Amino acid sequence: MEQIINFILELEKLKGVTRKVRPVGLERYENSAEHSWQLAMLAVTLVRYAESAVDINRVIRMLLVHDIGEIDTGDTMVFVEGGWEERKAAELAAVRRIFGMLTEEEGAGFLALWQEFEGGETPEARFARAVDRAMPVLQNLANAGGSWRENGISYERVIRRVAPPIKAGCPALWELLEVRLEEARRKGIFEA
Amino acid sequence: MEQIINFILELEKLKGVTRKVRPVGLERYENSAEHSWQLAMLAVTLVRYAESAVDINRVIRMLLVHDIGEIDTGDTMVFVEGGWEERKAAELAAVRRIFGMLTEEEGAGFLALWQEFEGGETPEARFARAVDRAMPVLQNLANAGGSWRENGISYERVIRRVAPPIKAGCPALWELLEVRLEEARRKGIFEA
Repeated sequence: MEQIINFILELEKLKGVTRKVRPVGLERYENSAEHSWQLAMLAVTLVRYAESAVDINRVIRMLLVHDIGEIDTGDTMVFVEGGWEERKAAELAAVRRIFGMLTEEEGAGFLALWQEFEGGETPEARFARAVDRAMPVLQNLANAGGSWRENGISYERVIRRVAPPIKAGCPALWELLEVRLEEARRKGIFEA
Repeated sequence: MEQIINFILELEKLKGVTRKVRPVGLERYENSAEHSWQLAMLAVTLVRYAESAVDINRVIRMLLVHDIGEIDTGDTMVFVEGGWEERKAAELAAVRRIFGMLTEEEGAGFLALWQEFEGGETPEARFARAVDRAMPVLQNLANAGGSWRENGISYERVIRRVAPPIKAGCPALWELLEVRLEEARRKGIFEA
């Protein structure tokens, strides 16, 4: 019980990890804790559009834990090129430390979820990754370009980075996003 | 699909609903979205201490949706006396509006979870409510009194308001909190 309390207080730190996206209607940057909550909600509502049948309960748990390593490493924008292997190794060390605060069995369960998400090979992980990749697209589209505009990310770069994972996990969502991204491009939301 | 996107963007607003507690180590107030994420994590790690066997997946979903009505009503500190019936009626109207953005089936599912949590009668709802009530206690204990001190809440008032729901849903957690609260009282963390 003491272990659980220390663990849950350690998780407080994820509320202080800021992402590059701003919640629609707010000036500040989003943090990884509230982002994880919203992904779980998006997964539940989108589940019937998953590319194949998924265990939604495992998807939810995966999304709840997938960013916890950022407590030690911080968030890195998905458009950053290179350095991903080092970052992922650092995140793995971080989740080993944090989940290691729990009993071996509990810690191992969370670590397995985190690794399944990172592996991206099960239907659950593919769907979870599609949801994770789609959410900032929805936010930026609703925010006149949001973090794309702030960071000078081109339309082509967005498509290259988000299309494959979203298509792989939730093709129907990609069909809709493709249309909206094209509209946004015509409206001049992206850098030339 | 359009409905889901509008719904998920509506949920952005929960990130702007502030509570009275500050995350440990941060100056700002906590918001209800990141709070919901943390409750889900606390429920998963605490589940073997639940008062009776629970379907943890329903508990998680309940906790993910339980504060969504605050998008329209804002958060009210649990120590405010009176006015709870009106506030709960307003929250019910709010969740009807927000879940009503989805198809009838999806919306009804979320509404049932919200109502189950509010009713507090099933083992799942009792455990979820214990987790919800315990989290700010853990935060305030780790924060030299936190929102109790800021709002002049006495030891007796804390016990009166948090002991029954935590005992009902997670008695082992209450045993530990009781000791820590008594220690905190001796250290002078509460108003006299």
